Amino acid sequence: MPICPIDTGRYGSKEMRALFEEESRLQRYLDVEAALALAQAELGEIPQESAVRISNHANVSVVTPEKVKLKEAKTKHDLMAMVEVLSEECGEDGKYVHWGATSYDIVDTSWALIMRDASKILEAKLGRIRDLLCDLALKHKSLVMVGRTHGQHAVPVTLGFKMAVFAAEVARNIQRLKELENRLLVGKLSGAVGTMASQGEKAFEVEMGVMERLGLKPAEISTQVVCRDRIAEFICWSAVTASGLDRIATEIRNLQRTEILEVAEGFEASTQVGSSTMPHKQNPVDCEKVSGLAKVMRGLVVPALENIPLWHERDLTDSSSERFIIPFSFIVMDEMLTTMERVLKNLRIFPENMRKNLRLTKGAILSEAVMMILARRGMGRQAAHEALRKASIRAFNEGRDLKDVLAEMPEVTGLITAEELEDLLNPENYIGKAPELVERAVAAARQADV
Amino acid sequence: MPICPIDTGRYGSKEMRALFEEESRLQRYLDVEAALALAQAELGEIPQESAVRISNHANVSVVTPEKVKLKEAKTKHDLMAMVEVLSEECGEDGKYVHWGATSYDIVDTSWALIMRDASKILEAKLGRIRDLLCDLALKHKSLVMVGRTHGQHAVPVTLGFKMAVFAAEVARNIQRLKELENRLLVGKLSGAVGTMASQGEKAFEVEMGVMERLGLKPAEISTQVVCRDRIAEFICWSAVTASGLDRIATEIRNLQRTEILEVAEGFEASTQVGSSTMPHKQNPVDCEKVSGLAKVMRGLVVPALENIPLWHERDLTDSSSERFIIPFSFIVMDEMLTTMERVLKNLRIFPENMRKNLRLTKGAILSEAVMMILARRGMGRQAAHEALRKASIRAFNEGRDLKDVLAEMPEVTGLITAEELEDLLNPENYIGKAPELVERAVAAARQADV
Amino acid sequence: MPICPIDTGRYGSKEMRALFEEESRLQRYLDVEAALALAQAELGEIPQESAVRISNHANVSVVTPEKVKLKEAKTKHDLMAMVEVLSEECGEDGKYVHWGATSYDIVDTSWALIMRDASKILEAKLGRIRDLLCDLALKHKSLVMVGRTHGQHAVPVTLGFKMAVFAAEVARNIQRLKELENRLLVGKLSGAVGTMASQGEKAFEVEMGVMERLGLKPAEISTQVVCRDRIAEFICWSAVTASGLDRIATEIRNLQRTEILEVAEGFEASTQVGSSTMPHKQNPVDCEKVSGLAKVMRGLVVPALENIPLWHERDLTDSSSERFIIPFSFIVMDEMLTTMERVLKNLRIFPENMRKNLRLTKGAILSEAVMMILARRGMGRQAAHEALRKASIRAFNEGRDLKDVLAEMPEVTGLITAEELEDLLNPENYIGKAPELVERAVAAARQADV
Amino acid sequence: MPICPIDTGRYGSKEMRALFEEESRLQRYLDVEAALALAQAELGEIPQESAVRISNHANVSVVTPEKVKLKEAKTKHDLMAMVEVLSEECGEDGKYVHWGATSYDIVDTSWALIMRDASKILEAKLGRIRDLLCDLALKHKSLVMVGRTHGQHAVPVTLGFKMAVFAAEVARNIQRLKELENRLLVGKLSGAVGTMASQGEKAFEVEMGVMERLGLKPAEISTQVVCRDRIAEFICWSAVTASGLDRIATEIRNLQRTEILEVAEGFEASTQVGSSTMPHKQNPVDCEKVSGLAKVMRGLVVPALENIPLWHERDLTDSSSERFIIPFSFIVMDEMLTTMERVLKNLRIFPENMRKNLRLTKGAILSEAVMMILARRGMGRQAAHEALRKASIRAFNEGRDLKDVLAEMPEVTGLITAEELEDLLNPENYIGKAPELVERAVAAARQADV
Repeated sequence: MPICPIDTGRYGSKEMRALFEEESRLQRYLDVEAALALAQAELGEIPQESAVRISNHANVSVVTPEKVKLKEAKTKHDLMAMVEVLSEECGEDGKYVHWGATSYDIVDTSWALIMRDASKILEAKLGRIRDLLCDLALKHKSLVMVGRTHGQHAVPVTLGFKMAVFAAEVARNIQRLKELENRLLVGKLSGAVGTMASQGEKAFEVEMGVMERLGLKPAEISTQVVCRDRIAEFICWSAVTASGLDRIATEIRNLQRTEILEVAEGFEASTQVGSSTMPHKQNPVDCEKVSGLAKVMRGLVVPALENIPLWHERDLTDSSSERFIIPFSFIVMDEMLTTMERVLKNLRIFPENMRKNLRLTKGAILSEAVMMILARRGMGRQAAHEALRKASIRAFNEGRDLKDVLAEMPEVTGLITAEELEDLLNPENYIGKAPELVERAVAAARQADV
Repeated sequence: MPICPIDTGRYGSKEMRALFEEESRLQRYLDVEAALALAQAELGEIPQESAVRISNHANVSVVTPEKVKLKEAKTKHDLMAMVEVLSEECGEDGKYVHWGATSYDIVDTSWALIMRDASKILEAKLGRIRDLLCDLALKHKSLVMVGRTHGQHAVPVTLGFKMAVFAAEVARNIQRLKELENRLLVGKLSGAVGTMASQGEKAFEVEMGVMERLGLKPAEISTQVVCRDRIAEFICWSAVTASGLDRIATEIRNLQRTEILEVAEGFEASTQVGSSTMPHKQNPVDCEKVSGLAKVMRGLVVPALENIPLWHERDLTDSSSERFIIPFSFIVMDEMLTTMERVLKNLRIFPENMRKNLRLTKGAILSEAVMMILARRGMGRQAAHEALRKASIRAFNEGRDLKDVLAEMPEVTGLITAEELEDLLNPENYIGKAPELVERAVAAARQADV
Repeated sequence: MPICPIDTGRYGSKEMRALFEEESRLQRYLDVEAALALAQAELGEIPQESAVRISNHANVSVVTPEKVKLKEAKTKHDLMAMVEVLSEECGEDGKYVHWGATSYDIVDTSWALIMRDASKILEAKLGRIRDLLCDLALKHKSLVMVGRTHGQHAVPVTLGFKMAVFAAEVARNIQRLKELENRLLVGKLSGAVGTMASQGEKAFEVEMGVMERLGLKPAEISTQVVCRDRIAEFICWSAVTASGLDRIATEIRNLQRTEILEVAEGFEASTQVGSSTMPHKQNPVDCEKVSGLAKVMRGLVVPALENIPLWHERDLTDSSSERFIIPFSFIVMDEMLTTMERVLKNLRIFPENMRKNLRLTKGAILSEAVMMILARRGMGRQAAHEALRKASIRAFNEGRDLKDVLAEMPEVTGLITAEELEDLLNPENYIGKAPELVERAVAAARQADV
Repeated sequence: MPICPIDTGRYGSKEMRALFEEESRLQRYLDVEAALALAQAELGEIPQESAVRISNHANVSVVTPEKVKLKEAKTKHDLMAMVEVLSEECGEDGKYVHWGATSYDIVDTSWALIMRDASKILEAKLGRIRDLLCDLALKHKSLVMVGRTHGQHAVPVTLGFKMAVFAAEVARNIQRLKELENRLLVGKLSGAVGTMASQGEKAFEVEMGVMERLGLKPAEISTQVVCRDRIAEFICWSAVTASGLDRIATEIRNLQRTEILEVAEGFEASTQVGSSTMPHKQNPVDCEKVSGLAKVMRGLVVPALENIPLWHERDLTDSSSERFIIPFSFIVMDEMLTTMERVLKNLRIFPENMRKNLRLTKGAILSEAVMMILARRGMGRQAAHEALRKASIRAFNEGRDLKDVLAEMPEVTGLITAEELEDLLNPENYIGKAPELVERAVAAARQADV
């Protein structure tokens, strides 16, 4: 029975996991071998009919995982086991299988194929999350709530503003992904140390033939392997993006606290076991999962970076860790995105609680608004600040509304009317350019993957 | 088909993996539930016959993984799914299942059970590696070879000395493991927030009854979970120990270089595919695997540390990452140890190459020996140093043996006879206290787990 | 002007920083050179009067940092620059300076001296924090407040209980530090590759003489350097301990939230600039600093672990990183401890807010208490659970007190009287064994450094 | 005296360090305050003459670090201390200092200014390293040497090929830096929670006025701070790039080994203390420094990632760690680049040793060449492989040249003439497309920053 929470089926969409399963990886190896044979045949390097036969047999229904495993038990080398099985299946023509190639020509080019498909899934999900955030941002661009710094009430923001901040970050991560794909999604057919020596005179043409068939760019130069900074860049991206999702999740977890409860994850009351005797207890388990998995992602960066400085034309120390970190970075990210999409789709919003919390400090979160107006009307910043400091402390100590205290201060009432004061202390009037900023940010965010 | 190289069967011994498989984890949950019921019955908290029935059904042959999975699909909560299935299987008595307990009473106590068994496996393997290193150290305590700093020839060491250095480090890691087990292997039965409130008046007695049955110590205090510094300490240990194995592996990889070839991994020439047309090419793939997996282990430290500062009486953000890092730290370590044991058992040693390399710099690695004797015989350190500096540079520039150059210098020959010089420039005579240090270190290393 | 926040004076006590300043490090080098000369003289290896002269000049007032810097500018080697200046200052006897020693005999033995003193500072501060936590734990062992899981109200705990959980963790970290000191605080005098060859026949006696003078144990075996697992273990400890402090800090930051405000950092209202117009805004800046610095500490683990697998008898790649990570781990930890001590000393506690928050969910956090009693009185767990589930949902939906709803349910009132219900729904009556657990944990925590 | 190796002057160019020194940071704060005042005056928000006076006094010669430190000792807030000193210096007009601004409007915008200048330094140095590598690549594109995988001789490469691989990686890192600068180098003027409320109606115009004066783009949206994914991305870049430099350094360290010595760092024989009695011992200390500092850089990623998920509109936990990681990532990178540039400029190349090493395995590294030709000439891959396997093992076991063994095999001599065999076993003839790949890679690398 499986151990890893990916293989138990707990994490990762079926679609994403399918790309990394043993059988699927095997098929990609075979795809590369087929492309190689066909390209070489076209250039006259190997017989046309051999290439066709190789291509026809280059399928997991023929070269089954079981056969390859059996062979590997003997040879202790997974890639060569595949080559041998394919060769045997092709009979006489089998001798042209893997012609002039090195194991990692196949392995790394296969990774590029898998990562290309996997990246598309990530892009699509990121795009949907970005869109959900943009929609929430626009919809709630004027829904006022408390802004908090240091965990303390500061001045008002809007829910839409929060969402736009997140949308902008997700958009940056989409943009980063698009940029790095140019470096990540490259194949190689350069042989044992990268010089293409075993491919003979037409090596560049073979490379082109293979890559065109597979729809990949070749690395401009490589050693036995495609250089690992490309993978490290992706995994750093994963960690940055995961931490951004962690940020959204942490925000929701905090806003869902019993004492705050301004937003909450959706909750299937019918069947989901939260704490059934404490109906107020609606655990943000999806967001907690996202925050938890983000930790895993941050840890993947360490081996990814250490894999960059391989010795000479390569040592093998990247191989074992990559069996973990390449699939995990994609699949865990996929799980995080699926989860976050669900969270955002079902996000519950409690405007009443937002209003209640805005009143919690009895006007103090709007002292800046009053201070700015007093300063502007000639009191000067220093004096205005001093006036508000006194009023605020008095209000705080006496448990009164700031408005009532201010209404008793002649230096204030001399400059501000009662109605004005009422307006100034209305949080809805002190959200600055939040709606416009939302629009600016949403417009920019929507450009990210165009 | 599986993705994770643990679940594909690539990494981890059968014995170690068995401990962490879903079914095995489920059985441990059931063991804790059984111990709980029996302890409560003994104290009169629940009926004796109910406890017996619960205990009898607390087995994966009854509470099968399939039933639990089906239930979990509804409840979205793996532990409670087990509780419900067990309750159903126990009929009327089922209502006493999980009496007064919280999910993590079961989960964390189960982890302690699993980690106890898993630690024993690690201890045994570490002990064997320590013993192999001690044996190699004593056997080769006087086998002279080049000592190297900065990758450059320095002064002679012995192969046994190298092994003793490693043995001492492994012994420290055994000692560390023993120490931390006191903190790691603890259970809990303290309920939803750690106060034991739901266990009623006899809570301490129930705790004692459960822990005695399971052979565990309880944590002296806990929240909903056993505090995560305990797990983080273990994972830090894993990373330190893995890096120590990486050090041994890196040493062998370097000494196995084509140009050096003083030691090498064993090689099954008959079937293993290295590079069959380059028989000199004996790739240290086992050591490369160890170095590679060490990178994975260093990465696990990041989530383990981040799991320490959970919010309040716990948040759930440790849960998802622990599904990876707890089994992985044990299983990957297990694989590293199995591999290193094989490497050390089959290590090939090439004394002829050691001798050849000792001569490579034509005596220069013994200039310190000559300098020390000249200094002691009255030349003074400064002058002795200057004499050797001149001689060495001359020897180097002219491609001659240091001995021949020194033999021409009257200030040298006045203090050292030709035979003495011959002796001084024999690497075997300049290994200092290497054999005695080996004995000192081996004696200490063998104490580590007594 | 300095850049690093340690050198600008922002972080680290004067006492701790003093240990790591260039001048202090230089003095430790000189101390080791003096001990070496005296030990060698006693054994007849060098003249007694030379040793006395070396010892007398081995002082930063003679071998000033300025002279050493000037020399280093030429030689590009800081340790040898010190040796040369000391030699020059000793005239004729200078030739016996550093006799038979290797740079890292001096460097690593000096580190042991510095780390010994620095560890004592950490131990003392950890001890004081443990004591503060134990005192707070005992004092408030029955001060009831909301227990929270997932950021949601769960069941009651006490403030003392929280503090005891922290005290126990700090005690574990004290215990860990004591254990690792046995491995960390070792010197070496084993020469260029660890064989002691350059110390001649009396090498073990010289080693003993030096170490006794310095009050250190020697490493049982070493290469050019003391093996780096010892330092890595310390830095992992630092990261675990820092994360434990982060946990306390995060708890306070959360409990200090405007909506919760159950505890708060002390605040010097007179001068400290928080937000003077928002007196409710009392930013937990000290705890935020602790949480922030914990991140730095977690990052130091990466280079510390990578320094373990040095090549052969050492490569130099640990050197540059250790200039950062060794002082930083001690000094940043010192800053965190100083800060946390201040926080705990001045912690403000708001019992009224605790009571208010306990009432926030109108009895729901005590539904477990009622359920347990109903189950025990014969209703059975299942039925009791169902009764409470219904009651809780009704109370929640109608915004009523759980008590009032329960009072209307005959299946409840048939088993529980009105007074009993009152008692059951009093949070003070549902803290389980919190006070006893506090006592158990405090007693254990106080043993940690005995 | 300083502790941090940056502040002792050990690491970082004067030019780079100057950007991050306290005084320089203070000047940038003042620059932003001046730009703010001038922009506001232009828009009529504050009096023109006040802005001019503020601008004139916004200089560290007036607002000296000493004055600010004194003030900070009282207020415990470094940024507000600067504001107060500047206000005082401006007399009456001082009240318009920092008008409507939040501390982090100034801090983060200042960081952008500093990072912009610092990035330019990095770009220039990376560009020079790329150019040096391209030059070396082209110059030595046909200088044959052993290619190595697993630390074992594989097939030939050229020195230029190695350099081109590195050049391509450096070029990718330049490209990455250029891309991320668009996201990193942004300012903000959005106030306490990002809504711009305190800047009043003309907030967008003020933002534009300030940013244009400073030559920065504003973040499209921000909270109290510019979102930390921007900084994390840079620090991930630093770690990837540092690991790439580590790769070059590790290559040189390995090629400089006593047994290999194909290239070596430059060495100032006159004064540098290496090991003067072992002239063969030329320690690659510069490369070891680069490898060592790369470890520090990999560690900085951990806090950088953890800083992304700040709470709400910000908590302060990024602040303390950023005092370390922002300057360190730039300055340590700067040191690494300076060092690597020196290494590459002075790289010594030993073609004779390359030739010697090529012969070390007596032709085995060319068995692939012979095998490919036999296969192509009709023997088939399988049979060709078998022929070479036999020949190689025989050559290896008997210590003979592969050529001599092959010359005795009729199945070989029937297909290949003696001259052909001679040619095939000449390493110069088996470098594949190395020269062309160098040209392709160099051409691409030179495009990186255009």
